[in-house]
Amino acid sequence: MSGCAAAQGGPASLPERHNPEGVARVLAVGSGKGGVGKSTVTALSAVALARRGLKVGIFDADLTGPSIPKLLGVTERPTGYGEGILPPVTSTLKISVLSMNLLLEDPSRPVIWRGPLIAQAIRQFWGETVWGSLDLLLVDLPPGTSDAPLTVFQTARLDGFLAVTTPQGLAGEVMEKSLHLARELDTPLAGVVENQSYALCPCCGKTFEPFGAGNLQSIQDRWGMGVGIRLPLDPDLAALGDRGKLEEYRNDQVLTPLEEGLRAIFPVM
Amino acid sequence: MSGCAAAQGGPASLPERHNPEGVARVLAVGSGKGGVGKSTVTALSAVALARRGLKVGIFDADLTGPSIPKLLGVTERPTGYGEGILPPVTSTLKISVLSMNLLLEDPSRPVIWRGPLIAQAIRQFWGETVWGSLDLLLVDLPPGTSDAPLTVFQTARLDGFLAVTTPQGLAGEVMEKSLHLARELDTPLAGVVENQSYALCPCCGKTFEPFGAGNLQSIQDRWGMGVGIRLPLDPDLAALGDRGKLEEYRNDQVLTPLEEGLRAIFPVM
Repeated sequence: MSGCAAAQGGPASLPERHNPEGVARVLAVGSGKGGVGKSTVTALSAVALARRGLKVGIFDADLTGPSIPKLLGVTERPTGYGEGILPPVTSTLKISVLSMNLLLEDPSRPVIWRGPLIAQAIRQFWGETVWGSLDLLLVDLPPGTSDAPLTVFQTARLDGFLAVTTPQGLAGEVMEKSLHLARELDTPLAGVVENQSYALCPCCGKTFEPFGAGNLQSIQDRWGMGVGIRLPLDPDLAALGDRGKLEEYRNDQVLTPLEEGLRAIFPVM
Repeated sequence: MSGCAAAQGGPASLPERHNPEGVARVLAVGSGKGGVGKSTVTALSAVALARRGLKVGIFDADLTGPSIPKLLGVTERPTGYGEGILPPVTSTLKISVLSMNLLLEDPSRPVIWRGPLIAQAIRQFWGETVWGSLDLLLVDLPPGTSDAPLTVFQTARLDGFLAVTTPQGLAGEVMEKSLHLARELDTPLAGVVENQSYALCPCCGKTFEPFGAGNLQSIQDRWGMGVGIRLPLDPDLAALGDRGKLEEYRNDQVLTPLEEGLRAIFPVM
């Protein structure tokens, strides 16, 4: 059985990929595997760059498990603006956020949609959202290699794909499936983030590796990605994220490597 | 915008749900959110019960991010048997495993399928696999509330849904979306596992909570679930899983609460 069909409408049959007006560059953040911290990395990337004065937006393409509004404390609904959707912004850094969860009457309810509806919603949000002038639009992809990520790859003209994984071999293997997908759909592989790479002992402050040693360098070598970013497991991240206060996060051990990595991906930004 | 459509063919229009012949009971393990340890909990549940002499199988319904074969070291391809698919078994405990990854020519390649193909594959595997006599068939659901989990809920006659989450509030919120889905599709809510609930300090062995205190009891109360299982973050799990040796795991701090929880869900097993 072949694993790759780009089924029901391959890239060739699709309209040209396009990006919203005013958006200078688009970076998709994905992992194949869920729960590796993809949404946290996306939100922190936005925080790090917005704090440097850049204009940043986040398109949350994870329709059935959206996390971005929760992490950044956004609850305001998008509003209509002429013929487009105007996304709300975060309270401090004014990061623009569009997420399915902001359109639900009750955000605790599931979006029980099959693939075609998911794809249609993504294409509609992508085409109709008025972001204004942005230095960078981050797209938070859901896990897997089916409808939602596939539709983003086929709809947006992505300037790069940033892969997120953890040191666990299993996470790396599933993440590499998403690298295959990105490459097959002609999206530049921008770099890889190894999240939860290490932790600090709560007693003595020494570094230890709760998920093992990881193999970031070997992934970079195998896929020819110059940018590799190791981030620690920081309990403050979970705590601030759960309170919708990720904008307040200031740990340079996390933010500096992230910002440097993003600037290595996009030197002029 | 309504979050719930059970779109493109609701339960009413579907054929009767059915289970494979010889399978005494079916428990779906899901989370809504990815990466909370759903596959690890599924595999460990199988290990705990198989070690007590029960006959256990695992149907890996995560077609685009399959983990079960890797965790349990299964590489053998399913074989044809009369008119059905005969799943391979693990080396020691003889747990039957059916996973998409075992059918791929190259397991590192992604399955780039849109929803309808995913749903069709799940229905076909469900209908055509010959499990033989099983005390329990565990179904490892992928993240989200779209095609794959929805198809499982609509195809199998599930005896229970075991939800997996972590102490992070965000994981809990996305997990509760899957509880909504299970309830809407008339599947009994069997219990909830709080994974990575606590860890042991590598210096002094004391317990600490790297992801915060969690709210297992409040989730149980809100949804009326008697069974709540707290599992620690154990680095040995990642290490053994990455080597395909989860069958060798023997930490009773993990296996005992899991086995007790499963026996509380199915007292006669």
